[in-house]
Amino acid sequence: MKKIPVGILGATGMVGQQYIALLKDHPWFCLSFVAASAGSAGKNYRDAIAGRVRFPDILNTTGELMVADARDVSGAKDCAFVFSALEMDKDETCSLEDSYAATGIPVVSNASAHRWTPDVPVIIAEVNHHHIQIIPAQQKARGWEKGFIVVKPNCSVQSYTTPLYALQVAGYEIRRLIVSTLQAVSGAGYPGVASLDIIDNIIPYIGGEEEKSEEEPLKILGTIEGGHIKNAAFPKISAHCNRVPVSDGHTACVSVEFGKKKPSIKEVKKIWTEFKGLPQKLKLPSAPQQPIVIMEENDRPQPKKDRNTDKAMAVCVGRIRPCNVFDLRFAGLSHNTIRGAAGGGILNAELLYKQGYL
Amino acid sequence: MKKIPVGILGATGMVGQQYIALLKDHPWFCLSFVAASAGSAGKNYRDAIAGRVRFPDILNTTGELMVADARDVSGAKDCAFVFSALEMDKDETCSLEDSYAATGIPVVSNASAHRWTPDVPVIIAEVNHHHIQIIPAQQKARGWEKGFIVVKPNCSVQSYTTPLYALQVAGYEIRRLIVSTLQAVSGAGYPGVASLDIIDNIIPYIGGEEEKSEEEPLKILGTIEGGHIKNAAFPKISAHCNRVPVSDGHTACVSVEFGKKKPSIKEVKKIWTEFKGLPQKLKLPSAPQQPIVIMEENDRPQPKKDRNTDKAMAVCVGRIRPCNVFDLRFAGLSHNTIRGAAGGGILNAELLYKQGYL
Amino acid sequence: MKKIPVGILGATGMVGQQYIALLKDHPWFCLSFVAASAGSAGKNYRDAIAGRVRFPDILNTTGELMVADARDVSGAKDCAFVFSALEMDKDETCSLEDSYAATGIPVVSNASAHRWTPDVPVIIAEVNHHHIQIIPAQQKARGWEKGFIVVKPNCSVQSYTTPLYALQVAGYEIRRLIVSTLQAVSGAGYPGVASLDIIDNIIPYIGGEEEKSEEEPLKILGTIEGGHIKNAAFPKISAHCNRVPVSDGHTACVSVEFGKKKPSIKEVKKIWTEFKGLPQKLKLPSAPQQPIVIMEENDRPQPKKDRNTDKAMAVCVGRIRPCNVFDLRFAGLSHNTIRGAAGGGILNAELLYKQGYL
Amino acid sequence: MKKIPVGILGATGMVGQQYIALLKDHPWFCLSFVAASAGSAGKNYRDAIAGRVRFPDILNTTGELMVADARDVSGAKDCAFVFSALEMDKDETCSLEDSYAATGIPVVSNASAHRWTPDVPVIIAEVNHHHIQIIPAQQKARGWEKGFIVVKPNCSVQSYTTPLYALQVAGYEIRRLIVSTLQAVSGAGYPGVASLDIIDNIIPYIGGEEEKSEEEPLKILGTIEGGHIKNAAFPKISAHCNRVPVSDGHTACVSVEFGKKKPSIKEVKKIWTEFKGLPQKLKLPSAPQQPIVIMEENDRPQPKKDRNTDKAMAVCVGRIRPCNVFDLRFAGLSHNTIRGAAGGGILNAELLYKQGYL
Repeated sequence: MKKIPVGILGATGMVGQQYIALLKDHPWFCLSFVAASAGSAGKNYRDAIAGRVRFPDILNTTGELMVADARDVSGAKDCAFVFSALEMDKDETCSLEDSYAATGIPVVSNASAHRWTPDVPVIIAEVNHHHIQIIPAQQKARGWEKGFIVVKPNCSVQSYTTPLYALQVAGYEIRRLIVSTLQAVSGAGYPGVASLDIIDNIIPYIGGEEEKSEEEPLKILGTIEGGHIKNAAFPKISAHCNRVPVSDGHTACVSVEFGKKKPSIKEVKKIWTEFKGLPQKLKLPSAPQQPIVIMEENDRPQPKKDRNTDKAMAVCVGRIRPCNVFDLRFAGLSHNTIRGAAGGGILNAELLYKQGYL
Repeated sequence: MKKIPVGILGATGMVGQQYIALLKDHPWFCLSFVAASAGSAGKNYRDAIAGRVRFPDILNTTGELMVADARDVSGAKDCAFVFSALEMDKDETCSLEDSYAATGIPVVSNASAHRWTPDVPVIIAEVNHHHIQIIPAQQKARGWEKGFIVVKPNCSVQSYTTPLYALQVAGYEIRRLIVSTLQAVSGAGYPGVASLDIIDNIIPYIGGEEEKSEEEPLKILGTIEGGHIKNAAFPKISAHCNRVPVSDGHTACVSVEFGKKKPSIKEVKKIWTEFKGLPQKLKLPSAPQQPIVIMEENDRPQPKKDRNTDKAMAVCVGRIRPCNVFDLRFAGLSHNTIRGAAGGGILNAELLYKQGYL
Repeated sequence: MKKIPVGILGATGMVGQQYIALLKDHPWFCLSFVAASAGSAGKNYRDAIAGRVRFPDILNTTGELMVADARDVSGAKDCAFVFSALEMDKDETCSLEDSYAATGIPVVSNASAHRWTPDVPVIIAEVNHHHIQIIPAQQKARGWEKGFIVVKPNCSVQSYTTPLYALQVAGYEIRRLIVSTLQAVSGAGYPGVASLDIIDNIIPYIGGEEEKSEEEPLKILGTIEGGHIKNAAFPKISAHCNRVPVSDGHTACVSVEFGKKKPSIKEVKKIWTEFKGLPQKLKLPSAPQQPIVIMEENDRPQPKKDRNTDKAMAVCVGRIRPCNVFDLRFAGLSHNTIRGAAGGGILNAELLYKQGYL
Repeated sequence: MKKIPVGILGATGMVGQQYIALLKDHPWFCLSFVAASAGSAGKNYRDAIAGRVRFPDILNTTGELMVADARDVSGAKDCAFVFSALEMDKDETCSLEDSYAATGIPVVSNASAHRWTPDVPVIIAEVNHHHIQIIPAQQKARGWEKGFIVVKPNCSVQSYTTPLYALQVAGYEIRRLIVSTLQAVSGAGYPGVASLDIIDNIIPYIGGEEEKSEEEPLKILGTIEGGHIKNAAFPKISAHCNRVPVSDGHTACVSVEFGKKKPSIKEVKKIWTEFKGLPQKLKLPSAPQQPIVIMEENDRPQPKKDRNTDKAMAVCVGRIRPCNVFDLRFAGLSHNTIRGAAGGGILNAELLYKQGYL
């Protein structure tokens, strides 16, 4: 099998670097194109990321690759598709991702820009893989032939959405949840959070993060109706997002209220242990063996010990116990730059490829 | 005015050291007696805390004081009362605190041992100062003449209980709350949390802390009935307690459900700004000018920047906003070893003194 | 006594904020003027530092002060002198500080720009206070009447230069020293070091810092000859500068080679304990009681415990022991943004004022 | 090939856990025996390390293994040899390691106890592999037939000893060196350093570490004479050992004085790049491809980015530059619990096995 040539838009940023690190030994995809802002264009990749290298190893494979200007869509003409890790503002990102799609190049995006475009699906591969069926409608509405856009959700969302979805498909309605997140500094990109702000400190605020954490799950759990994705009405979500002095790995403390039918703690554990999504059934290369890994120790999951569970693609859950106020409490953890960003994007691409969209 | 001689039980631990640091320039009390375990007894204080000094300055004033054996209650005979920062197990602590009280020495305790003894009041001076009126009943039931025991709550409780009480006295019933705490490592004492466990990490569990965070507020908000304190039935509280890499200062992310009558955000701010407790009215030396300090900046309160607000005795609140699921959300912060431990104990002693109990 | 009106250039940066925090209750100086870049000019101080407030308290006193454009020297016309915490490039800083001096406004600078100008003295008030005698020559050479420029050294230099100077004046020649510094992130300003670079990490490099650490002491220990400061030939210094995850406080591990005459460890301690500089004799308000504070505990000084010693203006030394290779080893610590920046600048101004230069 | 059964003494400690993690997929050795203190004996490994698990994965392979009492040497009778990670005091450790050797079981030790026993070699496999030739003399002197003891040096020593040895064998005499180390908290074991002592702090002292850092290299660079290892007379070493808030990876800032013949910086780099030791020639499974990896970036090596270089077994060096006082300066880094402990021990065992001693 010949590997499929892919490109990365926004390749010099932190998520871009993470994509390169993860694609290095990918069995299907081979990185052939890196693009970034005009300031980096024309440099080799090594020089372009000098002073902000996060994964030194990527220089061995990609250091000499020439960085293209992301604004010139013709540069990607030999790519089967591109990953977008663009860090421009919303309108610019939408417009540039659209240009690639219009030229016939599918865009598997990590950027938040298109998350609220009604016919762009926000995919967690284990949860709403069927939303990719909106692609033909998306293409038709825009007059695109081969290109399309698929995005993934915010890095804070996996840790609770996948576990809750598993309960939902098992027949338990989720009515409301209150979630407090303890988010790693890598979620803010690089340089991101100043060390003076976070040494011996936490910050009880992350701009825009609570809105994303509350609203994106509703689109993910929504239904395709008339060429659009209609948000689910439930669960109602209230999020408190905090920045903590952790490099990678977002933790979520979750209190859940079910509908009338309420599972026992034992049942919750059984459902999560047995849960498999389409990526598991298709044996996608980046899919974790189990999407949800239960930890029985009292003091787990912990970002440092558990963020890399199963290639950093699993959601670890622990402290599963009744809630004094609602019905169920638990702590969820996922790796924000892998499962929550580049790894999640690659898994989406694998799904799309295997389903014949790429 | 001659200063009142006081002692500290458990003087060598971290809270004990904090007591000494705070009492150094106290206008009413003067430290005349330090007691600790048999292992420290007979040493001077400097030697007794060698290798675990947290506040170097206390050695100047107290370094040469001889450490007594806390088990010998006669050592405290010249003290008007003692602060207890004992770190023994529950039964031993109860029994030893009882012995001091029985000898005629009031005990103002920071230990958790007696918090669930029905006739021992758990005091936040701004909230339930009237619970000290149970003291005569307590003395009578046990045959104590001068001695008694008063305790303060767990260090995680202030940050939300004081703000909620202020709303309650303003006429708003608090029905339920879900709170996630981000707690400093000093809350675990010394040596406490191992650095390998907390560098680049958080731990989503603190043994016994969620129970304390959920139940103690109900006793604090309870009523004296028949010589006992009867817990309040509301609010129902669900707590998620996390350890974070912060040295001092516990943060709480709180979602609150009111009864039928619900205050506006503006009203909440007004109530908190104007709230004064008895310590403020009596101008007690350790009382903060305002028990609740509102911070309007989006990203506050933060432990490093705000824990020392008003002698580290104020509760700082911020991010006051509606809740998507309940009615009100906010972040509260208080200094766990000062307001939440030694400082809170000293304020309780000041209250008792001014009210004629000491 | 009426307070002397002073200004701050570069008032919005981290050192600028530190100046404001320290001047709040200054017995001689009163802050009447804050200037910064054109971007901040015209705003009130509160708005100008929004999002990068390091010392919240300064907003109470200075929040409503209008920020002037530092490039307009006429704005400072009512100031007796200005502190410079400018963060522009070298040429711009030199030129702007010159403009103030030319207008008759003395500049007490924290910026590195003028440190290598031969007739600008680099002052550690306890060490080379007599270098201020070059001021008349400096003024004459440039045709300035009232204005002049005095600077202070890099924040890494105090911790070893003051102790070594004390030994030198006691008659011991210092021939060579090898010093490794462990420097706090606040030394890089704000936002400065990215948290992703320093959580669970150290960085064995700080741009330009080793050169400053090696060369500035030679100017400080130099002599005035013919209107210029001639560098001392000794000690030869080799510096290894490291960034560590500490907010404030630079530590230096020092190995010293003396000339033929070598003091005993006991003698070294005696010299350091007894050392007093001119600021101590003049009882300048910001002078520490002892410039050098010896800590006898094995594991001290430590930044977190000791950086604030004596208003954060003392140099703490510990681990005084023989060196296997040279003669003497020790660890020195000083607060980099107070003693090593704003506090050192204020002490220099107090010295200049008391000596009649301001 | 059948795998060789090996045991671990002190298997429940942090180094013990690291051994298990590294042996999991070892091509030659298979872990068949774990022993620890009497308190752990009789439990399965999972229970024995409950509450202090550092590498969760090891529970999958080793969780159900029964822990033996290390004091009962007969338990190891089926092991070809044992790794010792004992954490008892010096005399007890020496005596227990002796007992195993006397029973015919070679001991490859990580403990410091026997490092100063004259006929016990302290091995860095790339440096003094020939010291294992003392084993027959060691056995003879003690009347041991098959058993013997080999130890590895302190975890701080590799980072500079291997690079300096490479220069020495290339013909450059090393006369003196001054080294400051910035050591990770894992070097203190578990629980080790209290988080309150190291958040926002460094500690300029590690008990016993400077002596080890200064003296052990002299034994490693020594010669076998008359059945004993005679220490090298040079280099003279002066060490400043500091604890820093890093989880793993010790950094050393080194200034080196050569003898008369001095290499250029270019030559130093060439020597280090080309250096190979016996483990590389024998292609031992745990040997890094290059013992010394040069990093040309100004700000490297860094513990977080570089500690895992080549299975965490390489020494990374950077900042190679002339010294103002001596001749050469550089920063060295190695992973303290892998290269500096368990990994180094395993490499020593591989060397011994391949050379026919096991």
